Amino acid sequence: MSLTDSQDVLARVEREKEGYLEELKDYLRIPSISTDPAYRDEVLRCGAFLRDKMLQAGLEAELIETDGHPLVYGEWLGAPGKPTILFYGHYDVQPADPLELWRHDPFEPVVEGDELVARGATDDKGQSYAHLKAVAAVLAERGKLPVNVKFIVEGEEESGGEALESFVRQDAGRKLACDCVVISDSAMYAPGQPSLLYGLKGMTYVELKVTGPDRDLHSGSYGGAVANPGNVLAYLIARLRDAETGKVLIPGFYDKVRPLADWEREEFARLPFDEEAYRRSIGVPELFGEEGYTTLERAWARPTCDVNGIFGGYMKEGAKTIIPSWCGAKVSMRLVPDQDPHEIARLFEDYVRSIQPKGVTLEVISHHGAEPVLIETEGPLVEAAMAAMADVWKKPVRVREGGTIPIVSTFSKVLGVPILLLGFGLADDRLHSPNEKFNVSNFYGGIRAIVRLLDRAGAIA
Amino acid sequence: MSLTDSQDVLARVEREKEGYLEELKDYLRIPSISTDPAYRDEVLRCGAFLRDKMLQAGLEAELIETDGHPLVYGEWLGAPGKPTILFYGHYDVQPADPLELWRHDPFEPVVEGDELVARGATDDKGQSYAHLKAVAAVLAERGKLPVNVKFIVEGEEESGGEALESFVRQDAGRKLACDCVVISDSAMYAPGQPSLLYGLKGMTYVELKVTGPDRDLHSGSYGGAVANPGNVLAYLIARLRDAETGKVLIPGFYDKVRPLADWEREEFARLPFDEEAYRRSIGVPELFGEEGYTTLERAWARPTCDVNGIFGGYMKEGAKTIIPSWCGAKVSMRLVPDQDPHEIARLFEDYVRSIQPKGVTLEVISHHGAEPVLIETEGPLVEAAMAAMADVWKKPVRVREGGTIPIVSTFSKVLGVPILLLGFGLADDRLHSPNEKFNVSNFYGGIRAIVRLLDRAGAIA
Repeated sequence: MSLTDSQDVLARVEREKEGYLEELKDYLRIPSISTDPAYRDEVLRCGAFLRDKMLQAGLEAELIETDGHPLVYGEWLGAPGKPTILFYGHYDVQPADPLELWRHDPFEPVVEGDELVARGATDDKGQSYAHLKAVAAVLAERGKLPVNVKFIVEGEEESGGEALESFVRQDAGRKLACDCVVISDSAMYAPGQPSLLYGLKGMTYVELKVTGPDRDLHSGSYGGAVANPGNVLAYLIARLRDAETGKVLIPGFYDKVRPLADWEREEFARLPFDEEAYRRSIGVPELFGEEGYTTLERAWARPTCDVNGIFGGYMKEGAKTIIPSWCGAKVSMRLVPDQDPHEIARLFEDYVRSIQPKGVTLEVISHHGAEPVLIETEGPLVEAAMAAMADVWKKPVRVREGGTIPIVSTFSKVLGVPILLLGFGLADDRLHSPNEKFNVSNFYGGIRAIVRLLDRAGAIA
Repeated sequence: MSLTDSQDVLARVEREKEGYLEELKDYLRIPSISTDPAYRDEVLRCGAFLRDKMLQAGLEAELIETDGHPLVYGEWLGAPGKPTILFYGHYDVQPADPLELWRHDPFEPVVEGDELVARGATDDKGQSYAHLKAVAAVLAERGKLPVNVKFIVEGEEESGGEALESFVRQDAGRKLACDCVVISDSAMYAPGQPSLLYGLKGMTYVELKVTGPDRDLHSGSYGGAVANPGNVLAYLIARLRDAETGKVLIPGFYDKVRPLADWEREEFARLPFDEEAYRRSIGVPELFGEEGYTTLERAWARPTCDVNGIFGGYMKEGAKTIIPSWCGAKVSMRLVPDQDPHEIARLFEDYVRSIQPKGVTLEVISHHGAEPVLIETEGPLVEAAMAAMADVWKKPVRVREGGTIPIVSTFSKVLGVPILLLGFGLADDRLHSPNEKFNVSNFYGGIRAIVRLLDRAGAIA
């Protein structure tokens, strides 16, 4: 399979790409802020815009109503016997404030050099629209596709909506049946260096509340005579992780952790990674993590136990002399396969109760969990995707990530197919921040990569 | 020395006591709220009222201007060769809000049974005015006093003013030279059971701030790769005290602690104290404190190390997944003689720096300190005071307290004389709260006790 097989479509993309960019700008002009009810109509208008673009491309397309914002679904199933690729994306965007930090109206896209600046440019309108324009270009050029395609694009990714999750679970792989899912909602490892993201952490998020006296007490009158919830909370948290080795001390915590494979440690070690630049970029005096692992291994592939917030008693300026009635903390544990978020929550609670000092009561509240996921990194479709990215840039590096994308584990579990996380963004895209941008060259590169993926997948024997 | 020696004055007090109560009501009608600038004129009017009452009693009296509210000073020095007693009190009061919780106007005193209800009734106008009325009664009856007396009554005790502190230090025992100080601004151990408060704790109050990354980081992307300021803060606090034994672990912390004397442990053990009722009154499942000590010993005579507040990262509802840039805590150590607040602050800082995990920076801020104080519990004036209290109620019990009254240690250090903390209040006086009260019988009892103190002190050979 050589590049010449896609030459017809790639030439069309090259001729028409500025038109694609104009379409993307129209898409970006719709302020589809899902989290703000004031923008509800705009979100609806945005979903309809996308459905219309799917229809114009030659797909069958519809809006699927949900309890929240509608899903946009499209399909072209005219290649019987060939693989089916499901493209996922989201058409909603983050709020744009603080507005005063934007160089332009966040919903009036401006091209500055290679950068298309607008809210949603990279997250995820620009990346996801590359999927559609690739499919549209093939259909326009050839009247048919080498594979079957489906699109499912949601409207509440940025607002924590459950619509897609429920839809995927209820659908149970009927409408969404496919051979792989392609998601472009992440960044390349470095400019010009694409990556295949194959591992995401899961999460157990808990809140600890330690209660002592039924009200704040005078620390003079009662100090020394009662357990102090602040001291007790600190004790419990301190017992979660070894301060020297960084190991989590909850019994059983590591039992189901799948060790890093040799090839992973080797590939991670080969990645260009400037530890000193990383340290400087976050302003810490020194890096710290679990003994026996590199920084990338710690961040991508080892479970964590972190305080996200801690609070209680007198928190303002100056000195107030009280024994707080209660203190609390929010603690997240990022999990790796095959840790189970519910089991980890239980182990956490059992452990803190087993070491709980006397004189206080303890509440453990489970906020939410997400399953860790490791995606197949082998097989013909994975290889087709890797090769398609290499056709445009260079051979992708296989990476994992410390973050959690709940829909990935849902897709993986319900559909049982590889999830190809092919990011076209860059690390400096400022997503969720003012002046969000997407490199125009990456938009075009993404379209070309998907064209190649379609052709390569269609050529699988 | 028998009660008959004071019979003349005690009979006058009995005849005139209702008039004294009316005077106290006038004093209470002046809303001398020192902390609220809107009441500045009332505070001044209140100081002038008290000065005039001193003049009417036959003292020389004046207002001493300060940077804050004036001090009221009075003296009668017509007993050469006899002891000089300095009476301390304060004429300012706490704010009265929340007003809606008062049964009456807080500044329109109402007698309900034995209770005189008004802001300042017990804290400290009522208690301190008993001093003046005792002196006035003796002068009215006999035209002279058996001892020399001085009064220093301040107007910013409730607003943390420094005026009296500076005055005492600058005066350096000239104008305020005396043989003992009498303070009535506390409660009896129980109704009918007076106490002599001879020990107060000091304090070292510090704030710890642990800083990691220069901003909050995504706990997925960076978790495991950097030290978490919340975890580190908890570790540092957990290392301050042994969770099992309640011992403070700062090296040198106990070096200068004066052990409880045998007589103290014996007297404390004999005090009526219902541990179960105490536990219930503060709503804790169990009491907890330093191994080897009783609850009263812990609260009164052993140093503490308590979290007063802890904060950092995400402190609101729900879950936010960050590694906080910093976390902090406020920690107070209540000290006992002969611990030095500055030395303890230094030991604290040296210790936390010596155990500081890597990957963070640590700030230790010293808020303020106060010296612990133990007052002479022997000697003729102390015995005279104990006997005077016994004349009215019963033999006082000697008690200590966990709280800090900075002016006591200043008096003690600058004047070098016993400080007699003779409380006429009761534990249920609701000071600083709505419906503050002072028992009328304790007002009269206080006057009689001071009359007896004057006579007993005058009889010292």
